[in-house]
Order: sequence, then structure tokens, then C-alpha cells
Amino acid sequence: MHFASDNSGPALPQVMEALAKANEGFAMAYGADAIMDEVRQTIREIFEAPEAAVYLVATGTAANSLALATLGEPWQTVFCSSVAHIHMDECNAPEFYSGGAKLTLVGQSDKMTADELRTSIEGEETRGVHGPQRGPVSITQVTEFGTIYTLAEIKSLCEVAKSYDLPVHLDGARFTNAMMALGCSPAEMTWKAGVDAVSFGGTKNGCLGVEAVIFFDPKHAWEFELRRKRGAHLFSKHRYLSAQMQAYLSDDAWKEAATKANANAAHLAGGLQAIEGVSFVYPPQANMMFVAMPRAMHKRLFAAGAEYHIWSGSLEGDDPDEPVEARLVCDWSISIDDINRFLDLAKG
Amino acid sequence: MHFASDNSGPALPQVMEALAKANEGFAMAYGADAIMDEVRQTIREIFEAPEAAVYLVATGTAANSLALATLGEPWQTVFCSSVAHIHMDECNAPEFYSGGAKLTLVGQSDKMTADELRTSIEGEETRGVHGPQRGPVSITQVTEFGTIYTLAEIKSLCEVAKSYDLPVHLDGARFTNAMMALGCSPAEMTWKAGVDAVSFGGTKNGCLGVEAVIFFDPKHAWEFELRRKRGAHLFSKHRYLSAQMQAYLSDDAWKEAATKANANAAHLAGGLQAIEGVSFVYPPQANMMFVAMPRAMHKRLFAAGAEYHIWSGSLEGDDPDEPVEARLVCDWSISIDDINRFLDLAKG
Amino acid sequence: MHFASDNSGPALPQVMEALAKANEGFAMAYGADAIMDEVRQTIREIFEAPEAAVYLVATGTAANSLALATLGEPWQTVFCSSVAHIHMDECNAPEFYSGGAKLTLVGQSDKMTADELRTSIEGEETRGVHGPQRGPVSITQVTEFGTIYTLAEIKSLCEVAKSYDLPVHLDGARFTNAMMALGCSPAEMTWKAGVDAVSFGGTKNGCLGVEAVIFFDPKHAWEFELRRKRGAHLFSKHRYLSAQMQAYLSDDAWKEAATKANANAAHLAGGLQAIEGVSFVYPPQANMMFVAMPRAMHKRLFAAGAEYHIWSGSLEGDDPDEPVEARLVCDWSISIDDINRFLDLAKG
Amino acid sequence: MHFASDNSGPALPQVMEALAKANEGFAMAYGADAIMDEVRQTIREIFEAPEAAVYLVATGTAANSLALATLGEPWQTVFCSSVAHIHMDECNAPEFYSGGAKLTLVGQSDKMTADELRTSIEGEETRGVHGPQRGPVSITQVTEFGTIYTLAEIKSLCEVAKSYDLPVHLDGARFTNAMMALGCSPAEMTWKAGVDAVSFGGTKNGCLGVEAVIFFDPKHAWEFELRRKRGAHLFSKHRYLSAQMQAYLSDDAWKEAATKANANAAHLAGGLQAIEGVSFVYPPQANMMFVAMPRAMHKRLFAAGAEYHIWSGSLEGDDPDEPVEARLVCDWSISIDDINRFLDLAKG
Repeated sequence: MHFASDNSGPALPQVMEALAKANEGFAMAYGADAIMDEVRQTIREIFEAPEAAVYLVATGTAANSLALATLGEPWQTVFCSSVAHIHMDECNAPEFYSGGAKLTLVGQSDKMTADELRTSIEGEETRGVHGPQRGPVSITQVTEFGTIYTLAEIKSLCEVAKSYDLPVHLDGARFTNAMMALGCSPAEMTWKAGVDAVSFGGTKNGCLGVEAVIFFDPKHAWEFELRRKRGAHLFSKHRYLSAQMQAYLSDDAWKEAATKANANAAHLAGGLQAIEGVSFVYPPQANMMFVAMPRAMHKRLFAAGAEYHIWSGSLEGDDPDEPVEARLVCDWSISIDDINRFLDLAKG
Repeated sequence: MHFASDNSGPALPQVMEALAKANEGFAMAYGADAIMDEVRQTIREIFEAPEAAVYLVATGTAANSLALATLGEPWQTVFCSSVAHIHMDECNAPEFYSGGAKLTLVGQSDKMTADELRTSIEGEETRGVHGPQRGPVSITQVTEFGTIYTLAEIKSLCEVAKSYDLPVHLDGARFTNAMMALGCSPAEMTWKAGVDAVSFGGTKNGCLGVEAVIFFDPKHAWEFELRRKRGAHLFSKHRYLSAQMQAYLSDDAWKEAATKANANAAHLAGGLQAIEGVSFVYPPQANMMFVAMPRAMHKRLFAAGAEYHIWSGSLEGDDPDEPVEARLVCDWSISIDDINRFLDLAKG
Repeated sequence: MHFASDNSGPALPQVMEALAKANEGFAMAYGADAIMDEVRQTIREIFEAPEAAVYLVATGTAANSLALATLGEPWQTVFCSSVAHIHMDECNAPEFYSGGAKLTLVGQSDKMTADELRTSIEGEETRGVHGPQRGPVSITQVTEFGTIYTLAEIKSLCEVAKSYDLPVHLDGARFTNAMMALGCSPAEMTWKAGVDAVSFGGTKNGCLGVEAVIFFDPKHAWEFELRRKRGAHLFSKHRYLSAQMQAYLSDDAWKEAATKANANAAHLAGGLQAIEGVSFVYPPQANMMFVAMPRAMHKRLFAAGAEYHIWSGSLEGDDPDEPVEARLVCDWSISIDDINRFLDLAKG
Repeated sequence: MHFASDNSGPALPQVMEALAKANEGFAMAYGADAIMDEVRQTIREIFEAPEAAVYLVATGTAANSLALATLGEPWQTVFCSSVAHIHMDECNAPEFYSGGAKLTLVGQSDKMTADELRTSIEGEETRGVHGPQRGPVSITQVTEFGTIYTLAEIKSLCEVAKSYDLPVHLDGARFTNAMMALGCSPAEMTWKAGVDAVSFGGTKNGCLGVEAVIFFDPKHAWEFELRRKRGAHLFSKHRYLSAQMQAYLSDDAWKEAATKANANAAHLAGGLQAIEGVSFVYPPQANMMFVAMPRAMHKRLFAAGAEYHIWSGSLEGDDPDEPVEARLVCDWSISIDDINRFLDLAKG
């Protein structure tokens, strides 16, 4: 009954096999391996972006920080939601990689609206050289609260950004979960909507540790390569990153894993919704949900070995019925049996 | 009729004379000049802080950024008000000097309250290594909106900071204006209330360009000296910084200048208050005020050559009675005649 | 016939098996996995350092840069050899991670001598706040030219460093190759000789991509953890780093791989030495050699498919006998047959 | 008898008068003062560069660091002489401002030669993304050892730089001393020779603290303005920087001051040359000299109150005849009487 995170589950069997296969003989180091050529080709095809610059790194924070530093300048401010991973969970990595840029928090919820974004952008740079200059906009899809921007919402955010000539970054740590939920193509969720650069996650959806960074305009390529090397994120035995990503993208493995994770979450959410005293803080739309459950229910679940994070509130307290918020994440690997067992325990 | 800023007025005659006098013969460079010994001694006496480390730089942004970088770490977040100069008006200098620290905006008004500060501090660093770590608290006195923290308010902010072991910085670009308005001693407004480091402004109150940075705990001394040099803020002909500050602090020049500036502002505010259609956005407490005046009144004043900044709203518009906000600042040098002329014009 | 680098060969079978095994079920993220507990315990035992702080990252540049940034300050200079990897091959990563520290190049050869180090240290920081301050000393073992510091040499470098109170870092990308060649213990080559922090390489000696950073004084632990996270080098699915390192250190796999690589290189060097016209630029002591061979010999080898790097000089040129320098590296996996074939081709 | 530095002497009377005059009434802040318009115009005329971007800062280190950061990138290396002020005397300010660039030391003497520069440039960036990338070339004129590059030497350095597409910066802390010694125009010593950006010193030649930064290609203007502000080097009461520079450049004050300083040094050097046991380490060409004098001679001079720096060697020692090196600098203000008294004492 493991719902702590989609970064605590195993990697896909196909990915493990590809690693083993990639381990034969010698291969050029530092990204010059033949598998990386395949990855580049595959990603360009999948994204319908034959000119895109494509790179691999091992962590999502590296992908985000390096992409944003490449798109922006140290005297700028990055616009992101107030719950953005780049703000809350990267220990100032974007500030570090950018050389001291600022983050401007837009809105107070899971998603930024176009109006909130415009207001925030308007609020900056009315002071010439004195204030931070306007910089990249960063959108997280799936959001940090498990919700999903519609294509129209992404488009309208990008239109606001473009009207100020600002580049747009998409933090897609759960890219495929969103894409499968929306039923759209990678291109539709990115450059066709106006996105300039993507952190395309592999780790949370069945890889060991690999994320692609994709720039639709290849003018960023060389600067990114230098930043990646300088940031110590260029792997010498790069083939093991390539092999993960190539297996992930082959035979619809990525799509199937995300579909499974989403379906697992839907099953869990459906079951929870039917239980008295349970309510959702945000509507669950992909593979992660924020759900308020009575204190006693949590205690019962933890006692039985369930693993997940309390998000807000505390298990300590007298009132067994008081709602306490939890985050539940389903990865591709969790079994329906486990979910059902969890639901049975929740019902009490 | 110049109310644009207290950084656009002239320097005090005593300061200019001291500069001229300091220009005789040779003097040791880089802060080893004899006048700096006097400055150090004077500031230690004035602040009743015989151990304090005392340094001079030429700009307020340098004072703030270097002080905060010395008190904190790159992986921390600085707590400050949402209108803080360090956030709004320093083009990311604190982020640059700290090596990529973050600023957390506390509250939504001119002043932080102790409760807001506690809430903000509680909101950070609940995520171990993932989130930004809690760092220094920075208080601006006089605030960016012309209001003044009471000694009790400063004390309570410092108590909150201390309860989390966080150092406190005071941005005192208008230190003396606040001190004279409060009728307190430098020590009372700083270390006796719990402040660890002060940007002690000279520029806005009658100097050409000099600010002292004061650490009440001298353990910060050597790191600050290295940061100042590395930041290119150590003057070779340092005697000219020393001479300004020493003249400023001699014969109560600093106090008299601030008293004059405050009195000028009080005269202006009193006059404005009596005019129909004029209202204050914040209660004017030192030498700076934010005041809403009818559009037509602004037009009349600008037409007559008055100089000041529109803060919010616009002079363009049909309605002559619509209130438009302005910032008016009085320095020590403006004449009562000028103020009266302004008031007469305002009355129409 | 692959002698390009020990980062282009495959990973050890044991490491691949451990990865597969680690892939079962769920595991705590971000270094809280159970395998990491084993790794920590194992490294502490191997290094006879029960208090050591032990961390894993995926690249050698990350290990070096993060370790040096933790040991030093931005206003310092790191002392290293003029051919140090941290100077030549990390695209300014140490400067980036340290926030702008300098590197002072000591000597002009593969190894620093204690005298050269002392002279370099004496040359810095004679100017108070003006010059860079003295910072960490970094030693590469195996050196970038394939030679090995004796224990006495390391000790004498550390003694010089200690006499100025400077911490010592050891870049051990090929740690085990050196250790096996010297026939010493990990402790002898590090803390017993005076080393404070080690980049303990796994990647080049049979892992996919994992390096340990070891601080013998645990006071550096928390700062390192923050720097690692902020640098985007903390893996969410950390178990896959742990599993590599634990397999590497189990059943003497690390020692056997290094012994094989060294023996392969000795076989190659012995064969080359016997060939007319071949000479060594540096005495080969571990698994890497720099060797001058006639131009025609290179052409013959490359034509037959040999892979290695020309280090100095060029294959273009009329004189078939002109010596051209190459770097040849043997990893654990290359076969004696391949080496013999290379030698036969070299003989012509 | 003050020969410690040209940064320990007084400012020119004209400069002091201009400061006093500039102190009347109100002036626009942050570089929008009317005097700055004059300065910009004057410098463009003097340099025959009607498009040049012209800025003022208060320290030479600020001028150098900001100019180099604007010309280069964090992953590059700056080429400069091994005794360059930016390397030896700025506590890593160039590394800090650039975000972690490296400095590559060219040659081992006061001047770089074109051949040495070419060799150094060739030595970098042969390793793709791994090594530091080639960046700006920085030339110091007058050199740190008191010598002067001929126009032909500057031209040939610039030609080397241009052949690699690298920008050239000239650290002209003693610009006018060099220019007067060479008898050339500002344009000849800069853009006509191939220089792209200049730190044009005022401080050492009669100002209190002001340096101009000049970019001959105005494309760098806005980035420099942001870097200056972010570095806390934009003065609010900017008129006092402008007034210094404008007075300095008016009525040939700058040329006369440099001519005087050079003549003073020539008088001192001539006298010293005639004294038995005195020899020059570098040929004195401007207003600074490095001279070896017997230990006893130094003792005599210091006993009589002479002020200057021992550069190499020590006053401690038994042998009264052993040569000990000193640096002697003449500014515009030192009297011939003082110099003669020094020479008399030196003679013994």
C-alpha cells in the first residue's frame, strides 16, 4: 500500500532490460553514444519537432534549473505558481543556476490563470533598472496539486508570456500523465501551445533517473551544453541515460505506464469519494491526489502499513473525525489489490 | 518644489567642508585612513556598542546586500516585507551577493507584523533539504511607505526571529529620520531591540554617498571585509567616505538634518490634509508620504514645475477629480517657501 | 581495441545484477533507502572511519565541485596541479559551485611537490583583503597523467596544507586503481595521510555512474546535503545509486576490477616498451599511459579500428617516424586478446 | 615623502571645486543628472567615439569586473597577464561578477606578448564542452609594474584576440599616465588599436573615486546598466560622480595631472639611477617604478619618514648591502622638494 510518491516505485522492466543490453562493449562517452542519436531522433518525431535540441540529465531539478537558466538572465524574475516545485522543493536551485534570478509567485493556487500572470508581469519592471526584469514563465504540468492545465489554459498563459516577449518553460515531471489524461499529442501540449522548452520527465513514470530537456528553438543548444557540463550534469557513461529514455519511449511504454498510473489513481479516487467523511482538496486529474480524511481513518491506515504523506494538519489530536489532509500518489506499478486493500481499510 | 526623493537634494555644508578638509596631503588607502578610526569610534559610541564592527560603503544597496550575504547562506531565504527595497528596487542584488538566496515576502503592507513573520517562517523549511532554509529577517525603517515601526514592533519581530535563531538586519536608509521621529536612541532602535546588523544611511540625509554597515557581533568582521572587497565596494581613497560620515555624525548634523526633513514633511502633510480631495494612503510619519490627490491638482502642480513621482494611477484620464497617488519626499534642504508654494498650488 | 577511456567500457556484471535486484518494490526516495544505509556502513568500515559523512552523486565533477565548495569559500583559491581535472576538464564547475573561487595552478607537471605547493601557498594572501585567500588543496590520485603519488608524497602535501590550516581534497576518480597499485588501505591513502575529503570514484572502475563523497569530519555533512540538493544532484530514486556502490564494494569487486585494469595496462605498457620507436611521456603506473609512437604506427592502428585519443601532435604530417603522443586507457573489461592484437599492429 | 601609491594623494582642486558647485539644488538621481550628459558627450569627443556607451562607477575593481562580466560568459576564461590587478588584487571580484569565469594567466612578466597570448588561447578550448571556453582578453595599461605597452604591442594583442573573435578590455586605472607617456590620443590607445571596452581611471590621477567604463559598441549598454545596478554600483546621488569626471576632463586637467605625475616619477627615477647600488627591476615608464635598493638605504629612508611599499625581500637581515625591492609611485601632488629630500636620504 505505497502511495508516498511516484519516485519510490520501481523502474519498468523494459527500461531495466535496455540498461542490461546497453551494457555490452564500449560506447562513446559524454552523449556521443549511438543510443543518444536514437533518443534525439525519437523525441524529435514524438514532438513533431525536427529541429529541436534534445538533452538528457538525471534529475528533474537539473532539467528545470538548467532550462530556466538558459532561457533567462540573472537580473530577471521567473514567473511561476506559488506552489511550483522550482520554488518549494529545489532548495534554491533555480536561483543558483541562474546566477541569482528571482522567482515571482503568481496566484495562490495550483494553477496560474492568464489574468494572474498578466497582473504579475505588469507588476514587475515598471522601475527601469531598479526592479527585477521580466523573465521566463514556468508552468508545471501535471501541477503540484495533481491537477491538469487544459490545452486552452496553457495556450492562454503562453499568449500572455508572448505578448511580453517572455519565453515559456514547462516543468513536465509528470508530462505523460498529463498528456494521457488530456488525450493530446506532445506537440499540442508544448510548442503548438507556445511552450519554448520542456523538462520531459522519465524518472517518475518508470525510469531510474532520466529527464529530457527539449528546446524547440535550437539556438539554445550550445549554451545548454555548457551549462550542463558546468553544472556537473553531463554523464560520462551517458549511454545509461540514453538507454533508459529510449526504452521508455519505445513501444508506447511511456504511454502505457502513465495510463496505468492514472487508472490506478482514478480507481483509488473513485473508491475514496464514496467514503463518508472523505473529500478532495483538489479534483484528482492524473495520478496524484490531495484528500482530506478523518484523523481516525489515517491512524487505521498507517497502523496497517499504508505509506503516504500527511500534507496539512496532524495525526496528533483528540478529535477522531477532524479532517487531516494527505497526498496520495499512484505509480504504474501499484496493484489494484493494494488499492482495494487500502480502500477497505479506509472504509473501516 | 522638489519632492522627488531625498536622494536628489544637496549634501550638507558641513559634509562638503569636511571633504575639502580631508583633501589635504596623503592618507592611507583602503580604510586605513585616520578619519575612519574616528568614524569607528564615533559610531561605537553613538550606538553604545564598543565591540561593533563598522564599515563604510557608498550605496544603500551595497550595504544591504553585503550585510545580508554575510548574515545568511545561499540556500536560505530572507524574510522581508513585500514592498521591501531589497525586493523591489535592487535588481536582484541580494540574490546576486548571497549567491542565489531567495526572498520570502511577508505580509502585504508597509510593515510586517510579528504574526505574519511567524507564519512565513513556519511556512518555510518544513521539507528538510528540499525547501529553502530559513535565513535572515530584514526590516526597513523608515518603511518604504514612509511609516515607522515602533520600538515594540521591532522588538516583537526580533523576538520571533530569535525564536528561530535567525539574525535580524535593519535597512536604515532613513535611519535617522525614524530615530528622530521616535525620539529614541540608536541602540534602542537596534541591538537593544534585537537587531544584529544595520545599514545606517547617510546618503539620503545629507551626505554625497556613504552608508555604514554595523555588526554588533564582531565575528562577522573579516567575512564582511572580504565580501566588500570582492564586491568592488572597498574604496581606495576611502578617506572621502570617512570624512562624509564623520562630519555627518559630528555636532548633531545627522539629527538636525533628519529633524528638518521630518519637519518639512510634517508641514507639507499638514497643509495637504486640510485640502479637500486629498487623502493619505499611509499615515505620514517621517519625511516621505503617499498621498492621493485629484488628477487636476497634479496637472496644476506639474504645470507649475513641481517635481515628484506618480506612484499609482495615471495623469491621463478624463475625470479631473479622480484620485491619483503620488509619493512626496522632503529632504533637509527644501525651503518652507517652496512647500507653501506647493500647497498654494494644490489648493488651486 | 578500445583504449579511449575507462568511462567508455561496460559496468561490472555484479553492478548490473544489483541494479536489477534493487528494482523490486518500493523504496524511500532521496537517499533514505535501506541500501544507502549499507553503503554508508560499508564505506565507513572500508575507510576505518566510523564517523565519516558519506554521500553519493552521479558524476565525478559533481563530487569534486561539491566537495571543494563545502571545504572552501568563494573568496579563496584552490591549490591544484596545472593539469588537474578540476582545472582542465570541468568547464569551470568548481568556480561555479564555489560561487567564484579561483584555482591556483601548482607546478607544471603531473604531480605537485610539497615544495611547489608551499611556494604557491606563500605566493597567495600576502596582500590582506586584496588577493584571493588561501583555500583547499586538491590532489588527484591517479594523476591526470596516469602516475601515482606515493603515500609519502601525499603525506608531505597534506603536511604543507595543514601548516597553513588548509583542508585537503583528494580527487579519486581512479581511487582504487591507485590503491591497488600502491598496495595500501583506503585509510592510508586518505585520512591517515591527512586528507579531509575524498571523491571516491565508481564510474570509471565498473559502475554506471556513481561517486561517493566522503568527509572524515562529519561537521561538513549538512552543508554538503544542502549544496547537493541545490546543485540538483540529489537523486529521487536514490536506490539505484546506492545499489551500484554497494555491489561495487561487495566481494572485492572494486579491487578486482582495478587490479584487472591495472594488469591490462601493465601488459599493454610492457608490450609497447619493447617496440622500437615507442617511449613513455610519463611512467605508466596504473591503468592509463601517455605514450609517444611514430606517426605511421598510429595510422596503422587507427586503420585497423583501434580507438584512443591523440594527446599531443597530429597525425597529419609527412614524416612517418615523427613521434606523436597518445593517451591509452585500459578498463577492467578489455581482453588480453585485444591488447595483443593492438601490440601486434603496433609492431607492424 | 609619500610614494606609497597614487591612491593615497589628494584630489585635484578643480575636482573639489566642481563637487562644491554640483552641490547646489536638486538633481535627478541614478545617472539622469545633467552633468552626466556632459560627461558622456565629453568622453565621446575625447575618444572620437560618438556611439560609445559611457558609464561611471566609483572603483577600479567595479569598472574591471563589470566590464569583463558584460563582455564574457561564466563558462569562459579571461586572458590576462600573470601580474594583472584583476588576478592579484581584486579578491576574486572578476570571478564573482562573471558568475564563475576563470582567469588564464598569460606569460610571466609585466606584459603579455602576442605570441604568449596566442599560445595561451590555443591551449584552451581544445576539449569541446569540457574545458573553459575562450573569453575576453584584458590588458593593463600602465602595467602593474609601471611599464607601458606600445601602440604596436596593443595592436598585436588585439589582432590575436580578434583572430579568435575574442573581445578586448583595457584596464586603464592609469590610462592618462600611459597616454601622456606615449603621446597618443585616447582613440589610438583603444578602439583604433582594437580595444572594445575600457576602464578609464580617474581616481589615481586626481579624483576622489570615479572611473568611467566605455564600450565602443553600444550593444553592451543595457546589460551593463543592469549589471551595475545589480552589483550595487549605481549611485543615487550620481551627480557627484559626474562632477568629478567632468572637472577631471575639463581644461586638460587630466592630462596635466598625469604629466606632472610622470615628470615627478622621471625626476625620482633619474635621481635613483645615479645612486650606486640602486637598480630597476622594470624600466620606469610612467609614474610607478620597481627598484632594488640596499637594505641600509631603505632603513635610512623609513627612519626619516619616507612612505612606500617593500615589494620583495625584507628589511630584516644582516647584510646592509643586500638589495631589497620596493615599489615607488608618484602622484601629481608630490613636490619636487620631497623627491629631492628622498634622493638625498637615499644617497646617504
